[in-house]
Amino acid sequence: MTGAGFAVGEFEIIQRHFAALGAARPDVVLGIGDDAALLRPEAGSELVATVDTLVEGRHFLPGADPHSLGHRALAVNLSDIAAMGATPAWALLSLTLPDADEAWLGAFAGGFAALAREHGVALVGGNLARGPLGIAVQLLGAVPCGTALRRSGAGPGDDVYVTGTPGDAGAGREPGAAAALRRRFEYPTPRVAVGQALRGIASACIDVSDGLAADLDKLAAASRLRAVLQDELLPVSAELLDALGDARARHCALTGGEDYELCFTVPAARQTALRAALPVSVCRITRIGSVAAGSAAPGADAPGFDHFAPDRAR
Amino acid sequence: MTGAGFAVGEFEIIQRHFAALGAARPDVVLGIGDDAALLRPEAGSELVATVDTLVEGRHFLPGADPHSLGHRALAVNLSDIAAMGATPAWALLSLTLPDADEAWLGAFAGGFAALAREHGVALVGGNLARGPLGIAVQLLGAVPCGTALRRSGAGPGDDVYVTGTPGDAGAGREPGAAAALRRRFEYPTPRVAVGQALRGIASACIDVSDGLAADLDKLAAASRLRAVLQDELLPVSAELLDALGDARARHCALTGGEDYELCFTVPAARQTALRAALPVSVCRITRIGSVAAGSAAPGADAPGFDHFAPDRAR
Repeated sequence: MTGAGFAVGEFEIIQRHFAALGAARPDVVLGIGDDAALLRPEAGSELVATVDTLVEGRHFLPGADPHSLGHRALAVNLSDIAAMGATPAWALLSLTLPDADEAWLGAFAGGFAALAREHGVALVGGNLARGPLGIAVQLLGAVPCGTALRRSGAGPGDDVYVTGTPGDAGAGREPGAAAALRRRFEYPTPRVAVGQALRGIASACIDVSDGLAADLDKLAAASRLRAVLQDELLPVSAELLDALGDARARHCALTGGEDYELCFTVPAARQTALRAALPVSVCRITRIGSVAAGSAAPGADAPGFDHFAPDRAR
Repeated sequence: MTGAGFAVGEFEIIQRHFAALGAARPDVVLGIGDDAALLRPEAGSELVATVDTLVEGRHFLPGADPHSLGHRALAVNLSDIAAMGATPAWALLSLTLPDADEAWLGAFAGGFAALAREHGVALVGGNLARGPLGIAVQLLGAVPCGTALRRSGAGPGDDVYVTGTPGDAGAGREPGAAAALRRRFEYPTPRVAVGQALRGIASACIDVSDGLAADLDKLAAASRLRAVLQDELLPVSAELLDALGDARARHCALTGGEDYELCFTVPAARQTALRAALPVSVCRITRIGSVAAGSAAPGADAPGFDHFAPDRAR
């Protein structure tokens, strides 16, 4: 617990790496440097708030690339904002790390900043403490009042869609994975523009973090329905097929997790609007089944990842 | 990394301990259970956002009372909101813990909930992961546009005040401390009502977390002034004097940290307004000096606690 010869203090670290990180936004009245940030929400909007954490040994291995960690720490939160159909705005970062490694901090901040600028997010506050490496990001966004997507709005017969090719990230987490798969794990693409385009079209939406099957089940349960997945419709990437073969690739697409794709439902009457709002050029979306009346038998489907589930190794 | 026989999963833990924690608020459109919370900020207000973290081994010892930790994790954030003169509203909790100990979780949630209800705060989101014990709380509040207190507004000649009796918490952190001091460490009192009463009266404000001398220096530096502390004016509690004797008690009052008192400046013209706004019955406040033109010599004063400062043990 003693200071082990660090060259700089907390204040200097924040000034050097985090003080002006991300986008410059006119609605930030007061950013990093006081007891709290002051922000000006847009009139007529609801605030959207989420927090997600990356813990060493759980969400990433010791020695993981800090640039990727900076990207992922923000991406997993952007994905939550995307699932609500909202626009991200302001982030706060709580970082505990064992020492003040300048190279690590620079790379982490660089990965975080690149994605923050891409999505117009300003880092407005944070907290730095010495301890086991852990990263918590709180992200705030906005959505016009009453238009947010939720998990609970699906109706019987609505079609189920997913963005991208789930499973790639799950396979990319494994040691020795092909570079294209590893990149999907290390640099997930939060589907922020897709989420926004789905407002008024999707009846329900969730982001895929724990595995497609488990997260679709959560959407269905929140909507008091059951999911009917058509396995043969699952989009599986060529890279995943190459790496795992057909059966294991499909299993991984359903259960791999860490995808940060969106899974959403669309009523029959809005299929045309969906195709107009999301041309193939924006993002691959694939119909994978539907939701139907009734509830799933508990444990019937391949489960996703639950951090405190009994007797499951990862 | 394997599940060590936990009886319950993340979803059940959240439902059991955190789902309806704190105050019920009509401005929470959607709380825990979706990808993000939906909140409705009041028109004409600015949003105030802060995050603070407690890490085992750094902010508390292994085996610390979980009820106290629940209180402190929220209190340190309430104190930041108080220092802005704002009203707290919505919290998000990011908790990493090594196992799903039901007794620990119940006590932690109880300590958090009691303080949340006292201040009208709703827990609207969070994140639970297995890992080394660490607690990050994000707190959101509101303040009428343009009225927030900052560190940077003090003018030359303004008087400096502090609430309560700093040093008690710092002494209470030590093993074998008297019960009254230990209680000030384990259950700090965030000065939320004081902060709100200071809007329009205080010219600058900061909360005392790193030690009175260090935090007053930060306020003075942000205001481009220097602090002139009158040691003989320092409020020192009878309990602290009993425990440490006069000289060490005064040193602890200046440098102990973890006080979560407010330190603020008031121009001469507003002294009467201050006494009217804060009668002694609300909270003890003590004038301890003033701020003057010029800047402090670096390192001239007793330093507070900087998590990455070189060569300092705690």
